[in-house]
Amino acid sequence: MTITGLRCTICDRVEPAASPAHTCPVCGPRGILDVEYDLSRVKLDLASDPRRDVRRYMPLLPLPPDARLTPLRVGGTPLVEVPELARALGIGRLWIKDDGRQPTASFKDRASFVGTARAVMHGKKAIAAASTGNAATSLAGLSASLGLDAHIFVPSTAPEAKVAQLLVYGARVFLVEADYDKTYDLCQEAVARFGWYDRSAAVNPYLVEGKKTCGHEIAEDLAATPPDWVSISVGDGCCFAGTWKGLSEMHALGILPRLPRMLGTQADGAAPLVHAFETGATDVTPVSASTVADSINVGNPRNPRKALRAARASHGALLSVSDEAILAMIPLLARASGVFGEPTGVAGLAGIKKAREQGLIGPRDSVVHVVTGSGLKDVRGAMKTVKIPGTIAPRIEAVEERLASM
Amino acid sequence: MTITGLRCTICDRVEPAASPAHTCPVCGPRGILDVEYDLSRVKLDLASDPRRDVRRYMPLLPLPPDARLTPLRVGGTPLVEVPELARALGIGRLWIKDDGRQPTASFKDRASFVGTARAVMHGKKAIAAASTGNAATSLAGLSASLGLDAHIFVPSTAPEAKVAQLLVYGARVFLVEADYDKTYDLCQEAVARFGWYDRSAAVNPYLVEGKKTCGHEIAEDLAATPPDWVSISVGDGCCFAGTWKGLSEMHALGILPRLPRMLGTQADGAAPLVHAFETGATDVTPVSASTVADSINVGNPRNPRKALRAARASHGALLSVSDEAILAMIPLLARASGVFGEPTGVAGLAGIKKAREQGLIGPRDSVVHVVTGSGLKDVRGAMKTVKIPGTIAPRIEAVEERLASM
Repeated sequence: MTITGLRCTICDRVEPAASPAHTCPVCGPRGILDVEYDLSRVKLDLASDPRRDVRRYMPLLPLPPDARLTPLRVGGTPLVEVPELARALGIGRLWIKDDGRQPTASFKDRASFVGTARAVMHGKKAIAAASTGNAATSLAGLSASLGLDAHIFVPSTAPEAKVAQLLVYGARVFLVEADYDKTYDLCQEAVARFGWYDRSAAVNPYLVEGKKTCGHEIAEDLAATPPDWVSISVGDGCCFAGTWKGLSEMHALGILPRLPRMLGTQADGAAPLVHAFETGATDVTPVSASTVADSINVGNPRNPRKALRAARASHGALLSVSDEAILAMIPLLARASGVFGEPTGVAGLAGIKKAREQGLIGPRDSVVHVVTGSGLKDVRGAMKTVKIPGTIAPRIEAVEERLASM
Repeated sequence: MTITGLRCTICDRVEPAASPAHTCPVCGPRGILDVEYDLSRVKLDLASDPRRDVRRYMPLLPLPPDARLTPLRVGGTPLVEVPELARALGIGRLWIKDDGRQPTASFKDRASFVGTARAVMHGKKAIAAASTGNAATSLAGLSASLGLDAHIFVPSTAPEAKVAQLLVYGARVFLVEADYDKTYDLCQEAVARFGWYDRSAAVNPYLVEGKKTCGHEIAEDLAATPPDWVSISVGDGCCFAGTWKGLSEMHALGILPRLPRMLGTQADGAAPLVHAFETGATDVTPVSASTVADSINVGNPRNPRKALRAARASHGALLSVSDEAILAMIPLLARASGVFGEPTGVAGLAGIKKAREQGLIGPRDSVVHVVTGSGLKDVRGAMKTVKIPGTIAPRIEAVEERLASM
């Protein structure tokens, strides 16, 4: 660990590295902190490191070298070039980074990797989060692997299948008779009361550090052919900002010769960050969110500043797309690549299409798109994108007839 | 490729390596062939191979070095030791090999890796299978990644969610108004009529060769501490037999110093191979199958001889367990390890428990168990294993009360 301090994203005040604070003591709960490192003291030895997961980047993470880590393999996810889809989108090259192949099938495992290790480091036996989505599943799975008690707070309207998955991992699930905001507040109150470790990625500055590893991996894999753009969907903004930070670190260390521009995609029905980006604001005005892409169905992003800075510092963009455009990308990606993504995981592909149509992305530009979650997480969403064919009689003539109509 | 011939598992007659036959010309459709190699000519250079997937074992696969392969990363799945579960099962050591992290989230991708490459090698543009399960999803996904047309035949009673996944990958799905056996026959007829490549793992001798890579990986990962047992669930018997063949090859090549015993687990309601094993038979009597573990819900295993030989040659065993015992293993595994398996994927853990209780597995024995598919493939199955808790009011006192009762 070469942490020099924790800088407030609002007032720029720097807390000492050892501070237990998760947000700025002056600016309060919205004063999200950013972990700063002395990169001149970071030593990576990537060429000789046989490990193919996030542990390759330990010197860039807020963890001591002897931290107790989940035994599950986090990161090291495949990067696959998909020329057919690049052609369909009208761009030069396209790589898909498939984070659906994380231990609990989402990008969030990168954050939980650091979160669970920090909890253990602080001697905590319990950890908590308010979520029904990928963050909760990830926390439940990685906590199980380390013997930590995970406490998950969800609105009582949460789908039973999602709750069941949390329970399978042994999480203690609290079904709260309230909406998400009140459920979140109750979780925060419980964290304070019972001394649990707080996993909220938007508030806890260390969680987003785990998300950097996506940027580290892209940088290492494509050091020889640095992409023009890196694309990812945007809800709270942490995955987007974290990936940018990882890319920037690898650039500063001389591993990535050129920085990409960042393209962040929100859904039309949940686009407060796009609005802030377009109006030049540094903060967001919350909206009432509604999109089929449940992992980015966020009306009040709790980490807006890091995301807006990433978009601006990279000369990139934030834009939004319709639910229809998002869903259409599920079969398009699956048929071109064999990668089955959840709606949120493919939303950025609709963003690439729109950015290309607007001329923001050029016809020869190369793009990496991060699929943030497996399509198996939302088979219902996928079912909206296909039409179940009619049945046929068990005769070869019926097969012939059907083939002729295909 | 160092193939010397294709030996019939019934009459021992050897077809030449170049034969296009998929089954023995003398014994007919039940005359499954086994691919034989000249291992003295196989050169593996594992220490210097940076690839972490099944391509490491290309010289042991029925593919030329320049074969066109799926760009998806198949194999190289994590092996995690789970001491807590070893203790719960009363054995010395336990490793979980998580094949839920394959491209389409099941072990079957190992077979489809070879199947799709063989189809391309033969200049085929289309490939076919009769299945609603993991084999079909795997074929659809890997075919998409190579631009092959996948034709999938399923009984019209197949669950819509499974059919939808096939359609997302762009497979041509034939919903046949018939039971599985008639659907299978129609698929075979269509394969013959239209010249498609036949993916049926039980019949096509090359598919099971892909499954060997599970054994190759276990052997390489545990060469220093060879396990006493390797455990896997058994339906048709191909995964079980393929894994054994891979282990045997690595032993013959001097990489694995000692061979494990093979433990194959069937469900009580679909255990024809167990019956054959116990009565000393070389073939099976078909049964009417019924189990919650849908990937091993096989009443008429089409590849019994290879499986029975693997059990006997390894001084191993085939046994069966109840659906209740299978389901109980889902949360037990998830809570001890963070690995969420489908019912079939965890069935072997119930088999280990039973084998330990019978004294077949000793208290100090070390065991590798292969989780053959992700729990996300059957969330309904997982939901049967947990109880959704009651709701609470959004007050800290309600949290306190609930905690006290946990």
